[in-house]
Amino acid sequence: MTLGNLTAELARFVVDSQWSDLPAPVVREALRSIMNFAGCALGGSQSQAVSRALRVLDRYCGPRVATVFGRSECVDIFAASCLNAMSANVLTFDDTHVPTVIHPGSSVAPPLFALAEERSISGRELLHAFVLGVEVCCRIGKAVSPWHYSHGYLITSTCGIFGAAAAAGKLLGLSAQQMTWALGNAANQASGLVETLPDMAKNLAVGNSARGGLLAALLAEQDFTGGERPVEGVFGFANVMGRQPDVSHLTSGLGERWEINANAYKPYPTGVVLHPVIDACLQLRAEHGLQARDIVRIRVRGNPLLGERADRPAPVNGREGSLSVQHCCAIAFVDGLAGLRQFTDTAVSRPDAVALRGRVELTRDATVGIEEAHVEVRTASGADYVKHVPYLRGSMESPLSDAELELKFVDQAAISAPAIDARAAIAALWRLEALDDVAEMTALLKVHGV
Amino acid sequence: MTLGNLTAELARFVVDSQWSDLPAPVVREALRSIMNFAGCALGGSQSQAVSRALRVLDRYCGPRVATVFGRSECVDIFAASCLNAMSANVLTFDDTHVPTVIHPGSSVAPPLFALAEERSISGRELLHAFVLGVEVCCRIGKAVSPWHYSHGYLITSTCGIFGAAAAAGKLLGLSAQQMTWALGNAANQASGLVETLPDMAKNLAVGNSARGGLLAALLAEQDFTGGERPVEGVFGFANVMGRQPDVSHLTSGLGERWEINANAYKPYPTGVVLHPVIDACLQLRAEHGLQARDIVRIRVRGNPLLGERADRPAPVNGREGSLSVQHCCAIAFVDGLAGLRQFTDTAVSRPDAVALRGRVELTRDATVGIEEAHVEVRTASGADYVKHVPYLRGSMESPLSDAELELKFVDQAAISAPAIDARAAIAALWRLEALDDVAEMTALLKVHGV
Repeated sequence: MTLGNLTAELARFVVDSQWSDLPAPVVREALRSIMNFAGCALGGSQSQAVSRALRVLDRYCGPRVATVFGRSECVDIFAASCLNAMSANVLTFDDTHVPTVIHPGSSVAPPLFALAEERSISGRELLHAFVLGVEVCCRIGKAVSPWHYSHGYLITSTCGIFGAAAAAGKLLGLSAQQMTWALGNAANQASGLVETLPDMAKNLAVGNSARGGLLAALLAEQDFTGGERPVEGVFGFANVMGRQPDVSHLTSGLGERWEINANAYKPYPTGVVLHPVIDACLQLRAEHGLQARDIVRIRVRGNPLLGERADRPAPVNGREGSLSVQHCCAIAFVDGLAGLRQFTDTAVSRPDAVALRGRVELTRDATVGIEEAHVEVRTASGADYVKHVPYLRGSMESPLSDAELELKFVDQAAISAPAIDARAAIAALWRLEALDDVAEMTALLKVHGV
Repeated sequence: MTLGNLTAELARFVVDSQWSDLPAPVVREALRSIMNFAGCALGGSQSQAVSRALRVLDRYCGPRVATVFGRSECVDIFAASCLNAMSANVLTFDDTHVPTVIHPGSSVAPPLFALAEERSISGRELLHAFVLGVEVCCRIGKAVSPWHYSHGYLITSTCGIFGAAAAAGKLLGLSAQQMTWALGNAANQASGLVETLPDMAKNLAVGNSARGGLLAALLAEQDFTGGERPVEGVFGFANVMGRQPDVSHLTSGLGERWEINANAYKPYPTGVVLHPVIDACLQLRAEHGLQARDIVRIRVRGNPLLGERADRPAPVNGREGSLSVQHCCAIAFVDGLAGLRQFTDTAVSRPDAVALRGRVELTRDATVGIEEAHVEVRTASGADYVKHVPYLRGSMESPLSDAELELKFVDQAAISAPAIDARAAIAALWRLEALDDVAEMTALLKVHGV
């Protein structure tokens, strides 16, 4: 059996896909993903990373047709794609495709909303393109997982750009050949390194994945060629940026299984590997009435990736705190909560949190899955309490409810964009499928009259 | 011995460097590199890749202060950086840092010329920043060579972006901390794959390296953080995109040796690995009066990289011809020349060239250096002629003369930008060091009154 041209096959699937091909639960999950994305984009809209990037991009801005969610500025569609992706990802509160740890919404959604402000796009067109973009980036991610992320590539940006390109290309109505080229143009822009995870450069990589994907599609529309096998070729993405990739993931079961069904929404604004640990701590506190001051030791046993990504005994700011297993355990016991307010710079320097995080011990255990964690707490009286969390809250096994998604949206809007009418925006988002022009909804995410 | 923070050390070198630190031959070589770059940017300015990219970038253009060399359009400084880098590289006629096969001029020069149209920059400031940018990208390239390029990363774009960031950052007057962040912001945008070498996506990667480097520096100017060890860190560029990298190259002998001294200028518009092969063919033809129709076999023995990059028995257009050892051999014997006119779509489909390239046999031999080649020709009469070329023409051992560089400039201007006064531009370029405002010179590379 010959493998054929897998990129071309994937491209053709995207181009040929009809709205009626999408099962109702897939459309529903797309809507929930968009809800989660929009809330996170509001939540991160006032971050330093976004504000500083905006200062540069605003100065060199082209036609100002596109909204920066949660802010008053209008910018060109490339800058809006970049900034809204940064906003959605900066608090590490966005969605997670569980099999790959890609956060697909942050890369895929922004170019669609930006294009929808330049030309008239219906809610169905946007949802359809979004589903396909998520499908493409997650399939490419699966082809190079788990080595790719574990080796040090920022998988959300390196793979997200393919999703952004495919989704934007679907809205543009590219031909199958052009769609293949769009994926090639994306492949040549795929970038991002784990080294800078606690730095703004990480947000730049995610912003670029949205911007670069849009550029890839707009160039392909002009017949800007991108090769025929950019993903599976000998020197293509999968072979160069993967090790022993399984490129059959690109096309197997296309149209039968949908990757968006494996998309989860974070209950906590931290690296996803930390979620089962936080769940365990919160449950231990609630079930046994444990007080932070009584705890003498917290033992965490998790997948090696937990140690690689989140072993930060002394975080110096909120960003590092959200990537620190020590801070996550400490703050969960101190506050009994793990929301945005537990991951500010102030929260990370609180003496009670600092004291407790010094008592956290981390063990890496390859027999523990990424989605699970074991936590063992010893109190001053010598009692031990243990908790095993077998799967992520927010995942398919334990999904966030629509109400929880709304609450997450409202909370982020209240903290970062209080001028937004969150309830009106939420109502419009749930009605997205019926909207003839997405821009009507986007207007509700813009701060007016400033 | 601890390695210290090598990115920070390299950043500090760039920030602290004074004009008076540059030896005169280094300044001279920078001038020659700029001459070569500007000519190549004219040569590629009418290419389909540039024209198609311009259609997109023009539509979303910010303040139109910057020149697209060889054209009448003015665009914003990001678009100009991208397009001029594409132009300079698209004909594969640009410079080559021999130890790494990076084409540093295409990535490093464009953001400097663009910034010089936004603010007043002197010729010395531009040359100084250019030297430092070349230094940075070539040192980072050496740290990951030869594995990086041979594995499939497009080293000109993946490393060029660091040079563009450092050079732009020098013009912006960044602090040492900001310069480190600029390199981190560059690291997270480093991209480009060998798979698309014959496609426009390759030019996009090179264009992005110039644009992304400029963005990295402008963001760092706003204190957009990029980590402390983005190159040498555990999950940094060298470890993730290299294999057993030698990061001592980042800083050893800084200020004592200068990488720009290893920059060579192509005599032929082809992949640099093909140059010794073309040299050998042209010499065999000239020395023995060999006629294409008498040749029954051409045996080429070269470094394995020659086979990996240029074994294209049936190129379908000029771009592929410039990356085909078969076409290069054939056209060299047919025409006795290897200039731009030998690598058009028409030249590649000429029956005499097609016939002869079918008689080319390629052998990969790891004992042959990248810069050398063995060619053996058999004629119908049974006579054998052999030629060994030990080093690249255009390299340090056999440099192009200033007059040859001027001729290369004039030839490219005549073909692609005949409205330019090439002689006036050349004269101004040689005087660059004395210019108070580089924009005076750039104006000579713009097509006016269209």
